[in-house]
Amino acid sequence: MKAIHYPKGMKAPMSASSHTTNAGRGMALEHDLNQANLYYRDNDIAVIYKKPTPIQVVNVDYPARNKARISEAYYRTPSTTDYNGIYRGRYIDFEAKETKNKTSFPIQMIGQHQMDHLQRIVRLGGIGFFIIRFTHHQQTFLIDALTLIQTIETINRSSIPYQWFVQHGLPVQTHYRPRLAYLEVVDQYYFKEV
Amino acid sequence: MKAIHYPKGMKAPMSASSHTTNAGRGMALEHDLNQANLYYRDNDIAVIYKKPTPIQVVNVDYPARNKARISEAYYRTPSTTDYNGIYRGRYIDFEAKETKNKTSFPIQMIGQHQMDHLQRIVRLGGIGFFIIRFTHHQQTFLIDALTLIQTIETINRSSIPYQWFVQHGLPVQTHYRPRLAYLEVVDQYYFKEV
Repeated sequence: MKAIHYPKGMKAPMSASSHTTNAGRGMALEHDLNQANLYYRDNDIAVIYKKPTPIQVVNVDYPARNKARISEAYYRTPSTTDYNGIYRGRYIDFEAKETKNKTSFPIQMIGQHQMDHLQRIVRLGGIGFFIIRFTHHQQTFLIDALTLIQTIETINRSSIPYQWFVQHGLPVQTHYRPRLAYLEVVDQYYFKEV
Repeated sequence: MKAIHYPKGMKAPMSASSHTTNAGRGMALEHDLNQANLYYRDNDIAVIYKKPTPIQVVNVDYPARNKARISEAYYRTPSTTDYNGIYRGRYIDFEAKETKNKTSFPIQMIGQHQMDHLQRIVRLGGIGFFIIRFTHHQQTFLIDALTLIQTIETINRSSIPYQWFVQHGLPVQTHYRPRLAYLEVVDQYYFKEV
């Protein structure tokens, strides 16, 4: 059997489902976004990266010269969103979440610090949003940060119905390349293009 | 002895010198920058963060429910610079390095991927620069990304003389709060204020 070689920065889609750690949740959406960001970078359209997962290193061994092996470490709660970068001269910042839930999106998936962060970004003139995927419906929505945060703060429920996203979210279409062309939606909403 | 409690997000200065891993190099400058960024965030001036160090997790144990302990991991080479964020509506991106060298700055301290990244950022309309500290001279300079990159590519030496920074760098003054007020220099250079 011949091994498939993926371009640099891309992981085999298989690795998503075999992931079992906390950090592995929501890997399919992450894979699509990383692929889109790689395409945008390679074509000088945007420079947007997923930030590394913050890890608290407790112990490091040096089995060989210049080779550090971390032998004890813990995941830390990120203080910001996962993705940021630049597009059309503007600062872009977003959080991406996917849920298997059919009828609603659990609000607890979004941290208070992430909402605070996005509100700060918007106050300073940046573009902030969420990308929410309902895997069951195979639907991915882009929702402006302030719109979703306002709804979270007023809905008086622990989840937001799927139908709310159908009405208020901007659907992200899938294409051949990049598969998840989310910057098209950014163009439409934040740069008022049709 | 009474323990000193530092504000959230700040670490005790002591932790800098006690750090011995690769990731611990240049911790004093990092501490000053984190302190400045915390001040800028708390005062709604700018939102700029240091990205977490990318770590490749190989093995995770679960000694208790919901408690993940990383038992094998390795430092990865970052594909971007260490710092990015938003200031005055603009995307900001920079790399910070400090050297104990008295007479020159070793070019090898800056990775090719970091130069490529900053050039991309500038092409897309962002502000990109380096912050270089000479610890011996107690001098910290801000240098525009393209200026330093051009010099690196043409100097035909493995290091850039300290005097070059004195002539072409913008000195970052130290104050009471924040100690390293580097956005003052960004104002002067990129927003043409005096």
